[in-house]
Order: sequence, then C-alpha cells, then structure tokens
Amino acid sequence: MTLVMEQADGRAKLLFGAIALLRERGLRGTSFGAVVERTGAPRGSIYHHFPGGKAQLVEEAVDVVGDAVDGLIAQAGEDPRVALRAFVDGWRSQLEATAFRAGCPVVGVVAELGDDEAGGLAAATARAFERWSGRFATLLRGRGLGRRESERLATLVVAAIEGAVLLSRARRDDLPLRDVGRELDSLLVQRLAAVRDPSRRR
Amino acid sequence: MTLVMEQADGRAKLLFGAIALLRERGLRGTSFGAVVERTGAPRGSIYHHFPGGKAQLVEEAVDVVGDAVDGLIAQAGEDPRVALRAFVDGWRSQLEATAFRAGCPVVGVVAELGDDEAGGLAAATARAFERWSGRFATLLRGRGLGRRESERLATLVVAAIEGAVLLSRARRDDLPLRDVGRELDSLLVQRLAAVRDPSRRR
Repeated sequence: MTLVMEQADGRAKLLFGAIALLRERGLRGTSFGAVVERTGAPRGSIYHHFPGGKAQLVEEAVDVVGDAVDGLIAQAGEDPRVALRAFVDGWRSQLEATAFRAGCPVVGVVAELGDDEAGGLAAATARAFERWSGRFATLLRGRGLGRRESERLATLVVAAIEGAVLLSRARRDDLPLRDVGRELDSLLVQRLAAVRDPSRRR
Repeated sequence: MTLVMEQADGRAKLLFGAIALLRERGLRGTSFGAVVERTGAPRGSIYHHFPGGKAQLVEEAVDVVGDAVDGLIAQAGEDPRVALRAFVDGWRSQLEATAFRAGCPVVGVVAELGDDEAGGLAAATARAFERWSGRFATLLRGRGLGRRESERLATLVVAAIEGAVLLSRARRDDLPLRDVGRELDSLLVQRLAAVRDPSRRR
C-alpha cells in the first residue's frame, strides 16, 4: 500500500496516480484530468497508454492494488494470524500516513458501481477481493480447517477489515481497525485451537 | 432501507433522492443537478430547503440513514442475534431489490472523504456508524458481556457487514453477506454461551 512513484515509468506513474485518487476521492474523482494534474504526466500520454479510456485505467489500477495487497499477505508466510496482522498493519500505516484521507482504492470503485451497466469494473473489484480472501482461505486450509469454513472465515476477515478501514476513516482514528483486528485474531486463535482439539469446536 | 418517496413532502423527497444517489453513485455522483433529475423537484426548491448547499443536504441524508438503520436494529428487540439478522436482511433486501446497484449510502460518502478538509462530512458518517455499533453494544451488554468486549464485538459486526455489502456488490451475488452473517452469528452464539458458562471463555 506504499506507492513509490519516483522511479516509476510513465505508464506506472499514471496507474499510481489513479490509485492515489481512487483511495481518497473514489471513482468519479479519478478523472483523466485529475490523474494528469496529480502525476504531472503529459495529457497525451494517458490516451497513449490507456486507449480504452478511464475504464481501462481504473480496471488496471484495481488489478495492481489486487496484486500488491495479495503480495503483502503472501509475504507474511504460512501463519494466518501473522497474515492478518500484515493486512491490518498495511491499512493502518496508510491511514496514518495520509491523516485518514486515503482508504482502500478498490472500495473507492465499489461504492460507485451503480452505473456500471456492463459489470466490467465490478468484475475487477470482485477479482481483487477474491484474491485476498482466497489467500487467507488457503492459509486456513493449511492449518486443517475445512474448505467451506476456511472460505467463510476468510471472507469475514477481508470484509471486516475493509469495513474497519471505512469506520476508521469516518472517525479519523484507528480504534475501529485495532478493535476489529483484535477480535478477528481472537477468532482465529479459537478456530485454530478447535482443529487441534475437536472438543472445543462450536 | 426502503425508501417510500411517494407520500414524502418536498424536503423529504430531496433527502430520499440524495440517499438513493449516494448508495448507487457515491458523494460526487450526488450533485444538486442529479438530485433534481432523480426527484423531479423544482431546482429552486433544493436551494430553498438546503441553503447550506450540498454539504447540508448530504449531512442530513446521512443522519436520516443513521436513524433509519438504527430503527431497524432497535425494532428487532433485545436479542443480539435477532438484531444481527435484521441488519443483514435489510442490506440483502436492498441489494436484491436493486440488482446489486445500491450499497450503503454512508459508505458512499466515506469512500470519498479525501477532500473533506473541515471534517463535517466525516463526523456525520462517524455518527451513523457509531449509532449502529452503539445499539449492538447495548444489546450485548444486556446479555452480560463486559463494556469493552461489547464495544469491540459491536464494531466487528458493523464493520464486517458493511464490508460484506461491498464484497457482495462487487460480485453481484449475496454470498459474501450470507457467509459473513453466518460467521458473525456463530461468534455471537459462542460469546453469549461464554457469559453463561465462564469455563468456555477464550
């Protein structure tokens, strides 16, 4: 969730500019004009790199975020609790670094999907969320949880953290994110213990 | 979360129009022009009813949603599990009724708070979320959970369901909301049982 724009080439710079705008101002706030202003890129370059227009730029931006956050979770290793911590800390760092002005860029798209007749943007956002929850589900299965239980619990983790980022942005205070991180961690402890000792199962 | 516009007076009609747009298209998609077009209200009436401009209209719209959802949870009674069910079913009905085009209007504001220098809109959205989580926390305390545990668990409920609405909108499928509702219900069962039988506490 850290954007390193300085060394980026022209195309990557435009993508990072779009991501920065999506997380602060959402889909409608991410016009070509705003991206040009944010990045200082020549206006022509955006049409050159994204001939499919804003839809192409935003879809690719969402895919880049999907990759980056997936990589952040993957780097945490095999322990689902450590992965949860990495996911929470990534969002906390970003909220703090931006004085709570920037949330999740994928949510910035989803919150405005009402006009997405073709569903192309919706599909891109669903892909990002499912990569992250798929990653958590794989870690949970690796610890012996069943397939559907792993999927449900992983969906809860991603949904709850995305929601907590929104609650924290609204309050301009990371208490909701810390509280939700702590509750989810307790829940993982309990579910992982139940695998080792089935008498503790719900 | 059902909007009954037909019998509404002029002012309420404008508020309902703003809410309908916020949940589909977010804050920037909720211009005075769009509200006028949506409601068929005379353009002058919006300036008459909301002399404070768009900020006033949106803040009041967020307060109306805060009230309405709070009322929906309150009507479910004293059982936190029944209240959770009402909260989940409210969002499910809305998603289904709108072919997944409309999410939470409060989220539609929060996702675009990057330019909210004064913090007035942020405060309105925080107020709404805190009413809902405060309602759940009160129900949990009523069942014997401690103050901080009730607050944390209530924050998790609101964050997770708000996140699940987003995941469901992205997929255009209510599976994430159903999965998260089920996981939260299991968690409530476990926590409420732990109050009655402290040996089952984490």
